[in-house]
Amino acid sequence: MREFVAAREWEQFHTPENLAKSISIESAELLECFQWTDQPVEARLREELADVLTYAFLLADKMGADPTNLILEKLSITESKYPVEKAKGSSAKYDQL
Amino acid sequence: MREFVAAREWEQFHTPENLAKSISIESAELLECFQWTDQPVEARLREELADVLTYAFLLADKMGADPTNLILEKLSITESKYPVEKAKGSSAKYDQL
Amino acid sequence: MREFVAAREWEQFHTPENLAKSISIESAELLECFQWTDQPVEARLREELADVLTYAFLLADKMGADPTNLILEKLSITESKYPVEKAKGSSAKYDQL
Amino acid sequence: MREFVAAREWEQFHTPENLAKSISIESAELLECFQWTDQPVEARLREELADVLTYAFLLADKMGADPTNLILEKLSITESKYPVEKAKGSSAKYDQL
Repeated sequence: MREFVAAREWEQFHTPENLAKSISIESAELLECFQWTDQPVEARLREELADVLTYAFLLADKMGADPTNLILEKLSITESKYPVEKAKGSSAKYDQL
Repeated sequence: MREFVAAREWEQFHTPENLAKSISIESAELLECFQWTDQPVEARLREELADVLTYAFLLADKMGADPTNLILEKLSITESKYPVEKAKGSSAKYDQL
Repeated sequence: MREFVAAREWEQFHTPENLAKSISIESAELLECFQWTDQPVEARLREELADVLTYAFLLADKMGADPTNLILEKLSITESKYPVEKAKGSSAKYDQL
Repeated sequence: MREFVAAREWEQFHTPENLAKSISIESAELLECFQWTDQPVEARLREELADVLTYAFLLADKMGADPTNLILEKLSITESKYPVEKAKGSSAKYDQL
């Protein structure tokens, strides 16, 4: 991915802010698969999710962070906000549990 | 992550559509770090990016896909849309190159 | 609304780009009302929709455009893309009708 | 707008949740005008803002609410959260003023 971007000289466009905007834009294209239906076209879904992941990985890379580490780091925060005994079977926000 | 979700019995909420909505919602919280500034708070940025990644990984898992494979699969599509000689140094869309 | 913004000296933050980001951010808060349910809390829905509308009106104002005119202008474009006889009862995109 | 939708029998697709998704999707297309630049194409900007406004008006209509009233109702809430003497010249959130 880094090579791909470097070969096209696209780093100049990939400021953290532009990447954040791009993640939002691609997320909405993913959501568009579900705009009027809950039966999206599989191939398009894969592409749109890939776009979200690509920009998210590029932003992580820009921050010097590893995507898996970011997830695990946050998981431990979420763990303390949503203890099993309180959160089990509920979709409520932590401040409403 | 799967264990975390299973322990809380949250799979029932994690339909593909709800995960797609969640990715959009978390992307906007990431974007909020840049709403009025291009100097976001680092710790908050990490958390919001982690939330996007978490839901994106959960959706990939639900589709039986590996996040890294999805990225690479899409990268080869993007490669043919944006050949180096045309795309170098340009932020234009492929149909305007 | 203009008075409200002027009294707080907030015009300096309201560049077209910042307003576009704000519309996306508030839209996601609106979507959050439906994240895990299709029965949102009415009062919160009103507030989040109001936030989207507020930033959308501020951006229209910044562009010297009237919101209702923008809608009508676009409606006539949409009309030619989606003629009644083709679009009736279908949620397909115009290029797939 | 109501006539336009009724003629195409599109009310069946316009559940509050689908309209909320649509507002998010169109907001991201508006944001796309600013993805790599702060100098968007004026005509496209007008169309994308119109799309956001159209779905926001349709959702307001579905809730039996008037867009202008929603804005004014929320403005008075915002007024008490952001008193002029505290909020003047600041882009901080009300809980950080």
